[in-house]
Amino acid sequence: MTGKYIVVHGGAGYHNEASESSVKRALRRACKRAYSSTTAIELVESAVSILEDDPCLNAGFGSNLTLQGTVECDASIMDGARKAFGSVGATAGIKNPIRLARSVLEYSQNPDPLGRIPPLTLVSPGANLFAEHHLDRRYIVDPTSLASQQAVENWNYWTTNLNKATQGLEVVDCEKLHDVQDTVGAIAWCGPSDIAAGVSSGGLLLKHSGRIGEAAVYGAGCWAQRDKEVIDERTLVRGIACSVSGIADPIALSSLYTFVSGAGENIIQSSLAKLIGRTAGEALSSDQDIHNALEKALTVDLHEACKDSREQNPKVGIILLTVEDGGDTSSVRLWCAFTTASMAIAYMSPSNPNPKSLVLRRPHGKDAYSKHPLVFITALRL
Amino acid sequence: MTGKYIVVHGGAGYHNEASESSVKRALRRACKRAYSSTTAIELVESAVSILEDDPCLNAGFGSNLTLQGTVECDASIMDGARKAFGSVGATAGIKNPIRLARSVLEYSQNPDPLGRIPPLTLVSPGANLFAEHHLDRRYIVDPTSLASQQAVENWNYWTTNLNKATQGLEVVDCEKLHDVQDTVGAIAWCGPSDIAAGVSSGGLLLKHSGRIGEAAVYGAGCWAQRDKEVIDERTLVRGIACSVSGIADPIALSSLYTFVSGAGENIIQSSLAKLIGRTAGEALSSDQDIHNALEKALTVDLHEACKDSREQNPKVGIILLTVEDGGDTSSVRLWCAFTTASMAIAYMSPSNPNPKSLVLRRPHGKDAYSKHPLVFITALRL
Repeated sequence: MTGKYIVVHGGAGYHNEASESSVKRALRRACKRAYSSTTAIELVESAVSILEDDPCLNAGFGSNLTLQGTVECDASIMDGARKAFGSVGATAGIKNPIRLARSVLEYSQNPDPLGRIPPLTLVSPGANLFAEHHLDRRYIVDPTSLASQQAVENWNYWTTNLNKATQGLEVVDCEKLHDVQDTVGAIAWCGPSDIAAGVSSGGLLLKHSGRIGEAAVYGAGCWAQRDKEVIDERTLVRGIACSVSGIADPIALSSLYTFVSGAGENIIQSSLAKLIGRTAGEALSSDQDIHNALEKALTVDLHEACKDSREQNPKVGIILLTVEDGGDTSSVRLWCAFTTASMAIAYMSPSNPNPKSLVLRRPHGKDAYSKHPLVFITALRL
Repeated sequence: MTGKYIVVHGGAGYHNEASESSVKRALRRACKRAYSSTTAIELVESAVSILEDDPCLNAGFGSNLTLQGTVECDASIMDGARKAFGSVGATAGIKNPIRLARSVLEYSQNPDPLGRIPPLTLVSPGANLFAEHHLDRRYIVDPTSLASQQAVENWNYWTTNLNKATQGLEVVDCEKLHDVQDTVGAIAWCGPSDIAAGVSSGGLLLKHSGRIGEAAVYGAGCWAQRDKEVIDERTLVRGIACSVSGIADPIALSSLYTFVSGAGENIIQSSLAKLIGRTAGEALSSDQDIHNALEKALTVDLHEACKDSREQNPKVGIILLTVEDGGDTSSVRLWCAFTTASMAIAYMSPSNPNPKSLVLRRPHGKDAYSKHPLVFITALRL
């Protein structure tokens, strides 16, 4: 099997009609521009960088602002072939956090003269110091240049509301605070054994400065693995790549003064990307139904991990690429699963040479939410 | 069952004769001074703070210095009864990082006027900003005041060696770089349902500024959980608390230019504290042998999680408190398990009102290392 496969997402959440076309366009553009790259990790880095540069998505330029009105980003990237991971957290003034995460990953592959242990994760000023030595200077920018006009307007609006709410005044449409908190991500496969995944996020609007979210945490926001098995003297390569998105649950915001544990924090608590990767890998290798495995992971296992938190119905979405490559027989499938109202994705592959973009939506209607499990799962053969 | 139980550790690693007595004294002092606290989380916070203040341990004052010669600390704390967690990473100028981790945990218990999601982890300047509003001012100090004389001497010595090694010159006793990289931690139980765990670390000597280690990561450095079960109309409470320590493996340093993935990074990759907690909880509730469960977790499961890293024999140590409280029948046991040469612990309990301190050591002799599994496990009834 030859050829390149790239899938990107603009986050699970709620996509209204007004933003749908710009999000879809951004996702298609990311696929198209990244497609000239030759390795899976380059495809992921390139695609996520393009999404980070787009002001309509919550990553890089256009990120949600912190309580202090600053931009602080998280990103991570994983290379399934080399079993290598790198991430950055709460970075300010890094134009493309995913590129810095890649630099941390690549740095960890170098031998050290004293056998010092390379980092998995670098944060804040330390990450910037590392960037000065290991990242192209054009990606180190004035931190204020990453705040988009829309992000500043959102910050002004919600800071005013926060002040009102703190004084005990009523705030209408409080749940809309959580409409703009998607992450972006990408997964890619480039021929034998070469698989990668990445994720990037500006985090929660009005978050505390220094907050580390799921996009920076090992095993939480992205996962990539490759397994080999010899059957009847033939080598079968299996690849799994997964990128996770989460938002807070507006439905849980039933009162003004409310407790919310947050989808991002739930994703960390369940090591969700790693869980999905391991689950899908086991299902693939034992010829079990991946649909069932995903459903179990996103309902039973995720709920088990979060049962003690106050978020009873975590709002998350994942894209998952499963590859079975036996030389003459091969199969590449894209899985999307989400517990939110909608999820925006795009993909390109040898049989889809023009990028395709979709906003997947849960069924509407009064009974649509009444059935358990509340997870929507679909699969595409790429 | 009434009474208080506190166990502390000074890290798994190699304890030479010269440092043994000062480490044991520091651990006993931590137990004794913390014992006046009334809740498990206060016992843990107090004991870890005292260990952080001691220059002979790698946490708080006396922490290993970064490549830049600064002190940056990680710490986390977990409350089993409230299922609450808080951590801080790469903090500078915080005298007791465990106290700031506790502040993050307590903050997450407050309702938010806009339903904003509270953080699990805060890092670097953002953590300091949070400290200014939520931590007693006396714990916010000049960052340079946390560098002990010994830490500065170590830094000078190893910086010189790093420069030599970078120039291709031979460095003798290179493995000693990894002798001073322990974490400290504590676990406590204070009567029905009240169980907690914590961990704190100055991280690796000559680490990159901004590196986040296992002590800051959810599920990696500490774990506390409480389960209830009703059997024959009687309520049985089970409690689990675990604190994890890791060092790099000097045995793996077979050549000057070598790859090491690092125990801390392995602890993150395996979510080790969570794994141990869940494993012990399952063993307790099904009347299985905890010794076997621990052995499996520290050999099979940990190795599985790390099989792709270059560290083939992760060097870690854990302390684990298991509690079964059925009212009239009760059992509190302390488990220590480590794959290193030695581990230093101390404890106090109603039946041990004077703090007891031990340096547990693996058996010596040429066959001691030849058998698998390479894990030393012991249990004490407190």
